[in-house]
Amino acid sequence: MLERLNEEKVFKDPVHRYIHVRYRLIWELIGTKEFQRLRRVNQLGTTYLTFHGAEHSRFSHSLGVYEIVRRINEIFSQYESWDEENRLLSMCAALLHDVGHGPFSHSFEKVFNLDHEDFTRMIILGDTEINQVLRKVSEGFPEEVADVIAKTHTNKLVVSLISSQIDADRMDYLLRDAYFTGVSYGHFDIERILRVMRPGGDQIVIKQSGMHAVEDYIMSRYQMYWQVYFHPVTRSAEVILSKILHRAKKLYAEGYAFKQEPVHFYSLFKEDISLEDFLKLDDSVVKFYFQIWQEEDDAILRDLCERFMNRRLFKYVEFNPMQMNTWRELYDSFKEAGIDPDYYLEMDSSSDLPYDFYRPGEEEERLPIHLLKPGGDLRELSRESEVVEAISGKKRTDHKLYFPQDLILEGTSDATRRIKSLLNL
Amino acid sequence: MLERLNEEKVFKDPVHRYIHVRYRLIWELIGTKEFQRLRRVNQLGTTYLTFHGAEHSRFSHSLGVYEIVRRINEIFSQYESWDEENRLLSMCAALLHDVGHGPFSHSFEKVFNLDHEDFTRMIILGDTEINQVLRKVSEGFPEEVADVIAKTHTNKLVVSLISSQIDADRMDYLLRDAYFTGVSYGHFDIERILRVMRPGGDQIVIKQSGMHAVEDYIMSRYQMYWQVYFHPVTRSAEVILSKILHRAKKLYAEGYAFKQEPVHFYSLFKEDISLEDFLKLDDSVVKFYFQIWQEEDDAILRDLCERFMNRRLFKYVEFNPMQMNTWRELYDSFKEAGIDPDYYLEMDSSSDLPYDFYRPGEEEERLPIHLLKPGGDLRELSRESEVVEAISGKKRTDHKLYFPQDLILEGTSDATRRIKSLLNL
Amino acid sequence: MLERLNEEKVFKDPVHRYIHVRYRLIWELIGTKEFQRLRRVNQLGTTYLTFHGAEHSRFSHSLGVYEIVRRINEIFSQYESWDEENRLLSMCAALLHDVGHGPFSHSFEKVFNLDHEDFTRMIILGDTEINQVLRKVSEGFPEEVADVIAKTHTNKLVVSLISSQIDADRMDYLLRDAYFTGVSYGHFDIERILRVMRPGGDQIVIKQSGMHAVEDYIMSRYQMYWQVYFHPVTRSAEVILSKILHRAKKLYAEGYAFKQEPVHFYSLFKEDISLEDFLKLDDSVVKFYFQIWQEEDDAILRDLCERFMNRRLFKYVEFNPMQMNTWRELYDSFKEAGIDPDYYLEMDSSSDLPYDFYRPGEEEERLPIHLLKPGGDLRELSRESEVVEAISGKKRTDHKLYFPQDLILEGTSDATRRIKSLLNL
Amino acid sequence: MLERLNEEKVFKDPVHRYIHVRYRLIWELIGTKEFQRLRRVNQLGTTYLTFHGAEHSRFSHSLGVYEIVRRINEIFSQYESWDEENRLLSMCAALLHDVGHGPFSHSFEKVFNLDHEDFTRMIILGDTEINQVLRKVSEGFPEEVADVIAKTHTNKLVVSLISSQIDADRMDYLLRDAYFTGVSYGHFDIERILRVMRPGGDQIVIKQSGMHAVEDYIMSRYQMYWQVYFHPVTRSAEVILSKILHRAKKLYAEGYAFKQEPVHFYSLFKEDISLEDFLKLDDSVVKFYFQIWQEEDDAILRDLCERFMNRRLFKYVEFNPMQMNTWRELYDSFKEAGIDPDYYLEMDSSSDLPYDFYRPGEEEERLPIHLLKPGGDLRELSRESEVVEAISGKKRTDHKLYFPQDLILEGTSDATRRIKSLLNL
Repeated sequence: MLERLNEEKVFKDPVHRYIHVRYRLIWELIGTKEFQRLRRVNQLGTTYLTFHGAEHSRFSHSLGVYEIVRRINEIFSQYESWDEENRLLSMCAALLHDVGHGPFSHSFEKVFNLDHEDFTRMIILGDTEINQVLRKVSEGFPEEVADVIAKTHTNKLVVSLISSQIDADRMDYLLRDAYFTGVSYGHFDIERILRVMRPGGDQIVIKQSGMHAVEDYIMSRYQMYWQVYFHPVTRSAEVILSKILHRAKKLYAEGYAFKQEPVHFYSLFKEDISLEDFLKLDDSVVKFYFQIWQEEDDAILRDLCERFMNRRLFKYVEFNPMQMNTWRELYDSFKEAGIDPDYYLEMDSSSDLPYDFYRPGEEEERLPIHLLKPGGDLRELSRESEVVEAISGKKRTDHKLYFPQDLILEGTSDATRRIKSLLNL
Repeated sequence: MLERLNEEKVFKDPVHRYIHVRYRLIWELIGTKEFQRLRRVNQLGTTYLTFHGAEHSRFSHSLGVYEIVRRINEIFSQYESWDEENRLLSMCAALLHDVGHGPFSHSFEKVFNLDHEDFTRMIILGDTEINQVLRKVSEGFPEEVADVIAKTHTNKLVVSLISSQIDADRMDYLLRDAYFTGVSYGHFDIERILRVMRPGGDQIVIKQSGMHAVEDYIMSRYQMYWQVYFHPVTRSAEVILSKILHRAKKLYAEGYAFKQEPVHFYSLFKEDISLEDFLKLDDSVVKFYFQIWQEEDDAILRDLCERFMNRRLFKYVEFNPMQMNTWRELYDSFKEAGIDPDYYLEMDSSSDLPYDFYRPGEEEERLPIHLLKPGGDLRELSRESEVVEAISGKKRTDHKLYFPQDLILEGTSDATRRIKSLLNL
Repeated sequence: MLERLNEEKVFKDPVHRYIHVRYRLIWELIGTKEFQRLRRVNQLGTTYLTFHGAEHSRFSHSLGVYEIVRRINEIFSQYESWDEENRLLSMCAALLHDVGHGPFSHSFEKVFNLDHEDFTRMIILGDTEINQVLRKVSEGFPEEVADVIAKTHTNKLVVSLISSQIDADRMDYLLRDAYFTGVSYGHFDIERILRVMRPGGDQIVIKQSGMHAVEDYIMSRYQMYWQVYFHPVTRSAEVILSKILHRAKKLYAEGYAFKQEPVHFYSLFKEDISLEDFLKLDDSVVKFYFQIWQEEDDAILRDLCERFMNRRLFKYVEFNPMQMNTWRELYDSFKEAGIDPDYYLEMDSSSDLPYDFYRPGEEEERLPIHLLKPGGDLRELSRESEVVEAISGKKRTDHKLYFPQDLILEGTSDATRRIKSLLNL
Repeated sequence: MLERLNEEKVFKDPVHRYIHVRYRLIWELIGTKEFQRLRRVNQLGTTYLTFHGAEHSRFSHSLGVYEIVRRINEIFSQYESWDEENRLLSMCAALLHDVGHGPFSHSFEKVFNLDHEDFTRMIILGDTEINQVLRKVSEGFPEEVADVIAKTHTNKLVVSLISSQIDADRMDYLLRDAYFTGVSYGHFDIERILRVMRPGGDQIVIKQSGMHAVEDYIMSRYQMYWQVYFHPVTRSAEVILSKILHRAKKLYAEGYAFKQEPVHFYSLFKEDISLEDFLKLDDSVVKFYFQIWQEEDDAILRDLCERFMNRRLFKYVEFNPMQMNTWRELYDSFKEAGIDPDYYLEMDSSSDLPYDFYRPGEEEERLPIHLLKPGGDLRELSRESEVVEAISGKKRTDHKLYFPQDLILEGTSDATRRIKSLLNL
């Protein structure tokens, strides 16, 4: 079933040193055009505008997740319960888990009502090179891989390797994002963690003796969330990006005549996107349109694109979402000042973003971490670790108001004066 | 002259840990749209197709070169001869030295007869935001910065900081490219080198005691050239890229009707490109066209773009350029087999690429490295170091033939059989 | 006052890359024989028996603390309030803060009733080379340095640099101990922390924006305590070491005739140790005696030394200190089995060791960390950080019983059978 | 034959991250007292007086060599020719190759006419715990291990793993010594090198494609030799150390009455050392005596020990060994000035030290490196690599004169004036 390559292939990888490929199946999957497309989708969306090193793609992350799972497979090869089917399934699912991501997923999904999980499924099951390669294993194999990624597969053990609170996905992205941004958080002892993993009945468990290594991993995650993923400058870029998409969509709906037809966006605007259209989307396409839209007639679209491309972002202030009066007053003053608040004023809460650091049972269906006690009992991590308990129990509130400070500061009307005072500018 | 910011700004950088900005001038230059454009130009062209981590941009490299020069300035501040003018000039030149680079410079420059140095000059002296910022120092300042970058400035000391065999440019790119590709060569003790640098009369010199650190730097360079920069897979991608550009140019000249007008390429095709047009070029634009050209009617353009976008590169064999008969026979057989040799057969010599590891007095006008002996004498490095002498004296020959192995292997004609035999396939 | 060296001296340091010395005073202090003696005192006592890389000395740690303070001084040089006196005092105190440590301090201090702080004071104020060097500054300068180290100096700001919850001492030892043991905890972004430090009125404060970096540092500390400093194998070696010292002391008191007179221990045994005698103690001396004591007539001393030198440590089990009956039964059974429980059975609680991870106001007089809010207000760290609050509030209990498993397993008497059952062997 | 442990044991190692032990045999060898003794023998002799981080022991180096061989075994497990006997032999030989080293080997061997290889053999074959453990494999096994280490075993393949120009010994010490000293040379891509190693007929060969990685390794070695191993300050300490040993030996021969009998040195002085006596020697013992000798009556012994312990080393100047007249004049002037030249004047040439960087066929019997060409041919490395050819062909001369500058500077006689002039002081 698992044909080996004549000679192992390797990719040089700055995070894991080398990515090793021994099976023809994996090699062929990497060579498909749907997988190569991930080279053109940035792993961290707009984060490169805050941390200039964050220019790495989902391609390298996907290889990294695969490599972690490959190493786990190597360690698990000593357990009889871990058979070749598990090996095959887990490596393919690891490699392909993000294949349905498009450019700037977060904003695109919200504005155009998309779900990358749908596209992942379509790419694996549809008329694609990936599907062709997978079907060489068996007719039903693509479905199995898709089920593992969708967390609906009956083999819970394999699912937990790809989607749990300590899965290969997260381990790779924490290490990788830390490496490329250059922040010193995000490092943890992955070698140790892999060594204390055990295949439990229906989930991966961690030997009790590895608890501190896991604590360290959870803390890395916590730090990365607040230091990198929720960084307000990144969110500012994300706000502008969303506004551009909203504006373009609205203009299209109103029959606006674009100078060059944004054909790649048509099915998005109609919220009826085919797999074929989806596969043509990547960061280059989006940036191409944003660039030419800098010369559009519509002042708002033009201005927002100019801001995004040249990194003239919105500023922000802390804001209490309960101050509805202030919000209303600001909104009206923006209008009065001729600065359309629907595009130039936004309240963004980090809780809008996926809440992710450790909280068992929440954040969709990600499985909690269980520790394997010496006697064989299992204990959920936060019951054993005070540190994890401490940071998982509390909800962090962080609300900010985003706006174009330059426009406001140059204004001289009563309205802008009022805005300045409300925002303490 | 050098207005300081209220508070120092920092960029997190994975190579130098932090990039420090203390002067408003530098901060404003970074904020210009011409500088921000460098975010959309990959530092290493097609290398990401060989080393997937090499997705970093000229933006981060430019910041890195600036930071190295800033640190040298800090050390040099103890020397009276190193005045504020030198400080100002060197930091601006460091930051802007690559600002004239477009997407995939090497191939674009060859196919369209461009020179990034011309564009650097035009951007600094022309009607740009960068020019506006620089002119705040003085009317003549942009010219001075341009002259330093062009190596024509009379202040040879500052020139040598930016362009010599051990300049800030190379020091940053070796460290940065090693970091992002993940190779272990490319590291050297930059802290030590900065500490042994001294401002000589008209060039930066290195204290004799630092010779071994410099040897190590030269060796890193040697290794990076052969391991990364001249990697045959990268060159294969570069070959295909050039062929695409040639084909599109030829089609345009022949009046071919593109499905979507490649307006961004028009002035390139005519070899008459304005600054305005140039500034619109970036990696996104190129990749956008390459993507849509995958659906063009012209079979060659379509095929080449499909190869580039999906990384279906040409294979290669070693080839002795003296075997003109073999070349001729191959060329004719390709023709006969219906595989146009002008687009599908290429001999590439790494000596076509800039010869760069240490050889004093060659490679344009890069200045050699001089060691400062205890008594005050200067000695050219390769006269003191056997290692450097050894690797700088000899020319390395490396010629390869690139071709689409897949097309040839699937052929069954006499011609393809002949090709296979000639190439030992 | 602060004479500079003709040329800066540097030490290559694996943790801080380089240690820079610019002042003759510092250079001369490092050259004194009392400071050189620190090369012969291991930084982590018996930890090398658990983590074989932990063979670094207090010498390199002391240089590291000095280097951190030197860097802080460089940053603080922009504040007028930070004058040359502060600079001088802080660097000397940093360099000398551990100069009173002897070999295996923890056990020696407990068994022989010593306090390294007394010796530090005696070395700085007594008839030593260090005193001579310091007095070149002024007659009263040694006293000042000693006061800073003793935390009694009126300049609280300087004191807090050397002794607070985030002082240079801890920052160096966490980084250094992590480096040499090879564990991945212990790393934090020291460059960032140094950049957000500010000289407050009577203490160093941390800008609010640096809170996450400080959290990360606190977490590193927490992890290092449980993973490295309190490691049960290290404690086992410490238990044996203490027992050796106790036994030798007792034998001496009883008039036992050592084969070779342990002259270096005499004043320790009498608990009346002079500065001169103290300065002769180092790891070599201790290990020399432990080696020759392997051939002593006293069976207990001989056996314990043989265990220590050849790393045949005691095993351990978790133990509830409330089980006094079990303890009593064990103790009696050991006696009955002819295994002297005073030397072969020990209950060790990690809380006997200095409780150190963040808890403001406790652990002697270490100062808590204060954050500087944008408006200028100060807030104690654990009030702002949930993570710190979480881990600082709770006391961790960890009690273990140490014993020679080999002796017990080879026993066949009723008593040993009882012991095995009580210890679950 | 190779009984596995119930559970793999690991040592945390800063260089290789983890040292893995799976076989009981290896675990028991590490636990022997002869192997534990290596904890008390510094890996780099007096280098810690130049690079303060170099405090690591031969214990950690030995584990490192073992770990490299273990990894090679893992890779070689795919080759049928690499059987269990090779596995067993190579791992034991790797672990034990340095077991016969005593304290400060280089000087001790020269002064007392010792050879650590003899002791290695005696320890493996004699009445030791190591011998007992090895004999569990078979009666003849200790002999086999000793033969591999002595390079006399008929299995040349295994020998070349332990002793060749690119053996596990060197790979570990370069990486380890670089790590602990903190220098940036010494790093090379060991993972790559291990991957391109192949078991040839009677030696390990390197795939041609790995040539650059090997070049990088050779360069690291070259740099480490000149930057670390031959550092003149280290050599100065080594000179003093030798002089101490010479003096003590001479005093003993003359019947001098030491205040405390140096029993550990007696058999050394007589050049008739037994295995039992040898095993008692370690760094602690040597430093213990050097410390107490600081209070001896003999002025020379006292002074030299004081210099060594407090790092008051000899200074040095470059010296041309052909200037015999100058040497003679210096020697006489030292005598005249009352500074015994036999102990206070030394000419040291680095060529006295083992010449080690790559030169095939020299340096005892270390085997050269062979590259495996694609067709199966072997080529000696320096025939393929210009870099290696360059640095291996030339002999580097480096002669220095060492002397106590302090004594000379404080002298006022005609003789000291003459010395100052001859030495340019």
